[in-house]
Order: sequence, then C-alpha cells, then structure tokens
Amino acid sequence: MQAEIITIGDELLIGQVTDTNSVFIAKSLNKIGVSVYQITSIQDDKTHILKALKEAEENADIIILTGGLGPTKDDITKKTIAAYFNDTLVRDASVLKNIEYLWERFIKQPLTQVNKDQALVPSKARVLMNKLGSAPGMWIEKNKKVFISLPGVPFEMKALVQNQVTPKLKNKYNCPFILHKTLLVYGVGESTLAARIEAWEDALPNDIKLAYLPNLGKVRLRLTAKGFDKQQIKDEVQQQINQLLLLLKDDFFGFEDEESSIEVVIGKQLVKLGKTLAVAESCTGGKIAEHITANAGASAYFKGGLVTYATQSKIDVLGVSKAIIKTHSVVSAQVAEAMAKNTLQLFNSDYAMATTGNAGPEKGDSNAEVGTVFIAIATKNNVFSKEFNMGNHREKVVNKATNKAFEMLQKEILKNR
Amino acid sequence: MQAEIITIGDELLIGQVTDTNSVFIAKSLNKIGVSVYQITSIQDDKTHILKALKEAEENADIIILTGGLGPTKDDITKKTIAAYFNDTLVRDASVLKNIEYLWERFIKQPLTQVNKDQALVPSKARVLMNKLGSAPGMWIEKNKKVFISLPGVPFEMKALVQNQVTPKLKNKYNCPFILHKTLLVYGVGESTLAARIEAWEDALPNDIKLAYLPNLGKVRLRLTAKGFDKQQIKDEVQQQINQLLLLLKDDFFGFEDEESSIEVVIGKQLVKLGKTLAVAESCTGGKIAEHITANAGASAYFKGGLVTYATQSKIDVLGVSKAIIKTHSVVSAQVAEAMAKNTLQLFNSDYAMATTGNAGPEKGDSNAEVGTVFIAIATKNNVFSKEFNMGNHREKVVNKATNKAFEMLQKEILKNR
Repeated sequence: MQAEIITIGDELLIGQVTDTNSVFIAKSLNKIGVSVYQITSIQDDKTHILKALKEAEENADIIILTGGLGPTKDDITKKTIAAYFNDTLVRDASVLKNIEYLWERFIKQPLTQVNKDQALVPSKARVLMNKLGSAPGMWIEKNKKVFISLPGVPFEMKALVQNQVTPKLKNKYNCPFILHKTLLVYGVGESTLAARIEAWEDALPNDIKLAYLPNLGKVRLRLTAKGFDKQQIKDEVQQQINQLLLLLKDDFFGFEDEESSIEVVIGKQLVKLGKTLAVAESCTGGKIAEHITANAGASAYFKGGLVTYATQSKIDVLGVSKAIIKTHSVVSAQVAEAMAKNTLQLFNSDYAMATTGNAGPEKGDSNAEVGTVFIAIATKNNVFSKEFNMGNHREKVVNKATNKAFEMLQKEILKNR
Repeated sequence: MQAEIITIGDELLIGQVTDTNSVFIAKSLNKIGVSVYQITSIQDDKTHILKALKEAEENADIIILTGGLGPTKDDITKKTIAAYFNDTLVRDASVLKNIEYLWERFIKQPLTQVNKDQALVPSKARVLMNKLGSAPGMWIEKNKKVFISLPGVPFEMKALVQNQVTPKLKNKYNCPFILHKTLLVYGVGESTLAARIEAWEDALPNDIKLAYLPNLGKVRLRLTAKGFDKQQIKDEVQQQINQLLLLLKDDFFGFEDEESSIEVVIGKQLVKLGKTLAVAESCTGGKIAEHITANAGASAYFKGGLVTYATQSKIDVLGVSKAIIKTHSVVSAQVAEAMAKNTLQLFNSDYAMATTGNAGPEKGDSNAEVGTVFIAIATKNNVFSKEFNMGNHREKVVNKATNKAFEMLQKEILKNR
C-alpha cells in the first residue's frame, strides 16, 4: 500500500508555515503498514490541485489531502474534489448539527452563511466527522483508490487521523508490518561510523534498509524492515542489531522510541527511580525545559527550571557568587557547576543540569568564543561539567547544547542506577 | 520565475524528520522575487529522483534539491544528477582542499576514502563551495533552466542559500518584487472576520491576493502583491491596508515582521524603551522563554525566566505563599499574579509575565478543568491577570497560552508608551 500526502496552501510555498501535518500523517500511516511514496505541497489553486490529484492517483493507492478547507478559503479543496469526481455538493445534516453545536457551545456568536456552507460536501463523499471544528473530513473511493480530505488545522487533522482515518484504512486493507528501529550514536562522526560498520552494512539482507541521520553531535542509525510476519521481521532486525551493538560499543546510547526522544527516555527512567530533575539554562534559553515539559507526565519528575539569561540574574536568582564570575568569567566550568549545584538545592531535586555559553552571533557578557558552552550536571553527591565548542551558528549551538545536556544526564542516571 | 523545491530523504516520508529546509528556501526565494510553485518530498531512490527532476523541469525554471548528499547516503543525488544530465563525476580540487581543511581543523581524524569521494562532482556542475561541511553545493544549467543541489544539513544549506544561491539567481534573472504584508488579528474568529471585511475583500484589485491563516486565538491576514515597480506595489498595498484597518479597529494587533514574530516586535519595543522583561511559567513550561531567546539580541532586554512546574517550586523558588495556593488553588488568578509580581522583584525587571494552568491531558495539582489557564502581567505599579479556557489539547493549550501571554504584554507595553 502506497500513499501520497498532498498539503495545500500558499502559506507553505512562501515559507510562512512549516508543514508539520504531513509529518504526523506519515508517521501514523507507517504505524499501520502504509508507506508514503511522496509528500507534495501545492498552491490554493484549482488547476494545481486537479493536477496533483491526477498524478497522485497514478502513483499511490491512498491519497490524503490537508488544507484548503475552511470558511474563508472558499473551501477550494471541497469544490475541486467535487469537480475531480464530476460530483456536486450537498448539505450534510450531521455536519450542520455539529457546526450549530460548536457555535452555541464555544463560539457564542451568530452562525453566518459561510459557516453553514461548511456543511456542504460532495455527494459521493463519506463524512469523517470533525468534532473539534467546522470543516468535515471526507472519504471518497474510486477504482479501489481512496481519497481522503482533511482540514489543515493541526489538532483537528490529528484527531481525525487517529480516530477515523487509520482505523478505517486498517480495516480496509491487509497491510504489512513496518518496523523502524533507530539507534542513537553519540561521539563519532558519520563517515567514521560508516567505515567502522561497513562490513556489517554490506552483509545486511536485502529486505533490511539502513539509513544514517547525522545531526549536531549525534548520528541516528535507522533500520527498516517490512513484511507480513511480524515476529519474523522483529527477530531478523534484532539479530542484526545484536551484531551492530558489538561494533558500536560505548558510542551506542540507546534506542529512539518510536514515539519519542531522549527526554522521554530520561523521564521514564527518573519516574522508575523515583528521582526528580531541575534545570538552569543560560545559552539554551528555556529549550531544555520546553523539551521536558512538551511531554505529558513531566510533572511526575520535573521540579522546574530557571532561565538565567542575564549575568545579574545568575547572581540574584541563582545565588552564583560574584567572585566566581569575576575570576572565571560567566562562561566557565565554575559558573556552570555553581548553577547546577544551586539549582539542585533551590528546587530540592535529585538531579540538576545547567548550561552557560555563548550562542552568538556576537560575544556577550564574557570573552568566550562564540560556540563555547559549558554543561554541568549535579547530583546529591557530585557535580561535574564539560566544555564544548559547538561552532558558529546560534540555532546549532542551542540545539547541540540541548542534546549534549540530555546525553550527559542520561549517562549519569545510568551510572547511578 | 517559478521554482520547485525537491527535498530528498526517506526520513521525511516516514515522519521522522520535519522538512524545515524547504521553509527556509521558499522564504529566501520569495525575498528575491522567485515564486515557489511546488515543494516535493521524495525517497532516496534513483528512479524517484529522476522522475521528480523531469516533472519539475516541466513546471519550473529553477529546481532546487536538498538532501541525498553525504558520505553514507552513497551520494545518491550527485550520482543521479550526473545520470540525468548524461554526465560523469570528476574530482574537484577546491572541494577536496576544503574537506582536507575541515578534517584537519575540526574533525581531527584520518580522512577516509568516502570523505575524499565527496569531492566528486558532475563535470557540468559549477561548485557552490560549502565551507561548513564536506558535501558541496552544485549548480547546473540546461535549456535556460537552473538545477541547484544543496546538502540537507540545515545550517550548511542555509549558508549556501544566503551566500551563493540567492545572489547568483538575483544576478541571473530580472525578478519581480514580491510583497507580503501580514496583519495580526486577535480576538475575532475567522468567519466573523470574513463577514466583517467581505465588502473590502470583494473590492480588492485582482493583483492583490488575500489569505486567512487562523491559528489558536489569532488570525493572520496576508496580502500579497507582485510586480516590477516596487514603489507602486507598496503604495497599492498600503492603500488597501489603510481601508482594512478601519474595519479591524481594536482587533488589529500589529504587522508580522517579514522575518519574525510577536516576540521580536516586543523585543524591539523594549529595547527602544530601555525596559526589561522576566517570565515565570508553569503550564507553558519554558516555551515563552524559549521563544524570546530564540532571537539574537534577547539579552538586551530579557533578564530571565523561571519554570516553576511543580507546585512546591512555586513556593520554594518563587516565594508564592502557601496560603494563597491553599485558598485559591494553584491554578488561579491570585497565584498567577503572585508569580508575576515575585518574578518582577526577583529579576528586577520592568515587566513580568506569568502563566499557570492545566495543559492536560489529566488534572494536575489543582482541580481546574483541563485547558484552564491564568496569565498575569506585572509592571512596577500594576499587576493583573486574565482567565482563559483553551480547550482540551495539550499542545494547543501551551501554544495558545504562549500567544496570549505575548498579546497581553504587547497591549500593556503600548499602553505605557
């Protein structure tokens, strides 16, 4: 089963909005054994949508569109779909009822004609009820191909994919099992890693695909296999991973959860150990805290964080001594360690992380080179730090420092297990 | 001039990586007057790349590819481009020299054959030197069309686009001026807004395009015009905006900078006024601080922030009284206001924002409904808060609360000007 995802919207083509919808849809389809052949972002334009539909129909069995639905977009997708299938729009009573309910319950403003017209759908479409918004999802079948149109608002689209699209597709098709296993490798570059595992890679069976995803201090190695015998696929991949681990040695860091990231892995471990965490951030500016709290359940182990961006706030709020800052500069191992130690005490946590550095583009309150970052970890009995040069690029420095901080914490947690 | 962007990588099609490269490229092209016709994400696969190249050549004048370059991807893009142009790969001395330099200076490991082979480029290609990495950019012309291949690593790609691709394209083509003006509208829904400005919208000249981008509590209205007479375009759009503002009244909040967002607008105002800011976050978990510090220059006005995620840390770190929490619950106007006031004092800032709420999916330390959020703003003489219900969706609650907090702060700053 192959799918194509078409995302509609001029905002995507002028770079005003990042297309995260197709990421979610692709992930959801993979989970039920549907491969995505292509993702195509196109204009809010009838001719372009018709062309994309035609091409997608040639390449894929399942075509999913998002966007171009909504009161002010003139429902271009809906009208174009009707045209594509030589169909007309008819009013759907259940959709109208849903719109009336939403307006009465949440919007509390009079229902306008454009809102009511959102209940118009192509007569051949099966409605996928969107309980979170006024634009319904639509499902149309033609020559054994399925066309699904979804609203572009991310949380509306997500609910429809989870509750309606994937269950219905799973029901309709006998899909294979797709397994992705991603190994996190830290501390070794892409080409060095490739050279080290070359013989293993060359001997991989044809049905297991390997991909390298290098990114600022880590390389993700992804193995992918597909087939109808789930257990066989799993065993086959596990066997390859066992051999690979012998080659990766200490540079292997863990598996990337299907769903998640290193902060989720750390969170699960902390909950299991009954331990808590706090952070103090300078150059990472809240990114570490934001990564942690993006996950539901973080309150079970995350006490809180400090963003001591200004030097003075490191003194006032975090109690780092002026003398240390004066002697060693604000970007130093000593300051990072004092930040971590004081954060541990302030929040009464079991672990604390701290970052101080210069993310650029210019030198700040210290003379440290742009890219210099100190990361410290404190526990009840210990505090230590490491110095890094993360290069001359603000976004890169912040992201790399965030990755490294989680990496250092994870190694520390494993040590004290 | 029309461009098509092709992003290559299986990681995009399984939803492992979000395609932010095309966002940056699209924005950069728009700035020099090049419209993007389509963005296509495809597999690391020779047949698929060849097909995409052929289709893009039919639709666009400029074809930009990213990804599929790199030592372990087997340089699939490079080989496929060579095949597409019936060309062969030759070693480029300047690229090899750059690789040798990078390895000696940063990598400090022996240069392997795969690294050296990154200096192979199609003989017809002009090299776009990538000083930040080993995979060079390439520029090939054919029948007045330009094909540009860039590495997929975002900061390498960005540097090449900024320093080489856009200057060269600008030089080669006589491109029109593209103007996007985006108005931020808060506090009125998409369809109500549409009804209010309908007559104005209907009377818009054909060469000005209007788009609605609704998103969690705000609607962005984008006007787009294109032409060779820059001043005329600007005047024409300004004239329309003047009329529109009369209809938007107090719901108009400001213009979205071409480059930026509300936090950048706020930052510029604070710098101009010589005022400073601090934040205390509970339910937003660091997102507000992260938004602020994502911008270079934030240190000029941002003193710092607190993420008091656990109730106890609101007491221990921020000095919110136990009695207030007990009487009013941790999700309350009183706690939000105490957080803002204490943050102002702790960081000695002129403005402070605070959030407390329940982002879900479950009820936390208070009995507040999921989605309930209190946002408080404190100044030297005043503190106030507002209550919101932001619905039942964690990501939505966090993002909407972040938007609302910035909106409240901005209104307060404008008032005290």
